[in-house]
Amino acid sequence: MNEKQKMLSGELYYPNDRELTGLRKSCRVQLDELNATCQTEHKARTRQLKALFGTTGKRLYIESSFKCDYGENIHVGENFYANFNCVILDAAKVTIGDNCMIAPQVGIYTATHPIDPASRQTGIEFAKPITIGHNCWIGGMAVINPGVTLGDNVVVASGAVVTKSFGDNVVIGGNPAKIIKHVEVGEV
Amino acid sequence: MNEKQKMLSGELYYPNDRELTGLRKSCRVQLDELNATCQTEHKARTRQLKALFGTTGKRLYIESSFKCDYGENIHVGENFYANFNCVILDAAKVTIGDNCMIAPQVGIYTATHPIDPASRQTGIEFAKPITIGHNCWIGGMAVINPGVTLGDNVVVASGAVVTKSFGDNVVIGGNPAKIIKHVEVGEV
Amino acid sequence: MNEKQKMLSGELYYPNDRELTGLRKSCRVQLDELNATCQTEHKARTRQLKALFGTTGKRLYIESSFKCDYGENIHVGENFYANFNCVILDAAKVTIGDNCMIAPQVGIYTATHPIDPASRQTGIEFAKPITIGHNCWIGGMAVINPGVTLGDNVVVASGAVVTKSFGDNVVIGGNPAKIIKHVEVGEV
Repeated sequence: MNEKQKMLSGELYYPNDRELTGLRKSCRVQLDELNATCQTEHKARTRQLKALFGTTGKRLYIESSFKCDYGENIHVGENFYANFNCVILDAAKVTIGDNCMIAPQVGIYTATHPIDPASRQTGIEFAKPITIGHNCWIGGMAVINPGVTLGDNVVVASGAVVTKSFGDNVVIGGNPAKIIKHVEVGEV
Repeated sequence: MNEKQKMLSGELYYPNDRELTGLRKSCRVQLDELNATCQTEHKARTRQLKALFGTTGKRLYIESSFKCDYGENIHVGENFYANFNCVILDAAKVTIGDNCMIAPQVGIYTATHPIDPASRQTGIEFAKPITIGHNCWIGGMAVINPGVTLGDNVVVASGAVVTKSFGDNVVIGGNPAKIIKHVEVGEV
Repeated sequence: MNEKQKMLSGELYYPNDRELTGLRKSCRVQLDELNATCQTEHKARTRQLKALFGTTGKRLYIESSFKCDYGENIHVGENFYANFNCVILDAAKVTIGDNCMIAPQVGIYTATHPIDPASRQTGIEFAKPITIGHNCWIGGMAVINPGVTLGDNVVVASGAVVTKSFGDNVVIGGNPAKIIKHVEVGEV
């Protein structure tokens, strides 16, 4: 496997490989363009995001400034929205369902490093995919850690640090995030 | 009531209404100008902020980059300061007293959504006002949730997630924020 | 002592002093240049960072957008990396060892203010140095508070709020941060 294949498989890999460095550079050029496009240019920004991401629905919008590592490893469903200053580290695949909304200042991080300092110093790292179901709402300043899977209809409270996976129909919050309550259909 | 009136009253409203969309676009143009103005242009930036906000005192300053939804629903007292990368979602009124300072990377969010996924999917949302008293200091990376009221002389610790209201003269911190201690006059 | 000397000694000082205001302005001009330099211009950005910081190693890189107060009070060792949207408030000295990496959206804050509202209103403030050892990894959205010292090989979990000092070889997390586990050499 080459470094990109290792990265996407969750294996240890070297990010300073030529192919991966090139992909990150290309992503940063696209991000600089996106973030320099006036936030009133709704259609242009949506077009830029469709070019940047691996998969999208017809409708998507992200407010400035948005940051990610590759873009092509981000797959969002129909009707996706992310608010100001979100960061998605997509070394592994980030899959988000339909009708999801992400509040400002959220961090979705697939990237991680060895705990052992000697290994970490070599520059080797790895990544774990993040999967978010349909109809989820991630509150402001929340963190989603590497490897987390969230089911459908999940609400993540503002400031939550999500360190493990949760199933459908829950509101989670706190650091580390725990279930606060269950979502009842029809509840406002 | 039209959508703007509903929004400001805390009722469910549709943000993609023509009037509200126009107001947000106008705000984003002003923010792009503000954030592109060199941070040494102190007077120009203060003038831009006075034009953007609903009410201000004579002295106010906000570091780059600053983000908000409308600007006109933000009312700050005399001698207001906010540090780098703060976000204020002002769908409902945000009222901040005199002599308040906000540290970097803070999120003040009035905007909220239905918990029920079917309702949330329709795009309907609501907002709850946030009120912060005089002489408050909000620490770095703190989150202030919709509907929160803080009294005078409140100190919010860095990283606090403020989910409910607190009265005067307290230091609060944690996730969710709780009272850490009471402010004694003359204490340094 | 002048205001700058008081600031660096941890004494109460007035930041609107002419010398300190000039230093912050100069820093902001450098930051505007850095953050406007395309993220693919790796060498140019490293050169800008070497001019901005007090001490650096040969290899260092910081992603956009980066914010700090003075720059000259930041001292990093060899092989330093910080990811997107980090903020370092360096009124007091920030010392970071070799081979450290900082994840996105982290806040490292030396700056603090009196708890007493009357003192705070005068604009007087103070700062406490932050020291981070060698081979540390600070996770995304973590906060490092004024006065904190971290030993070597420390891993700070994402979303941690570090309010006190910790020695070598620990993984810390939570709000406030506590020891989660000890680092074993060779662990991945």
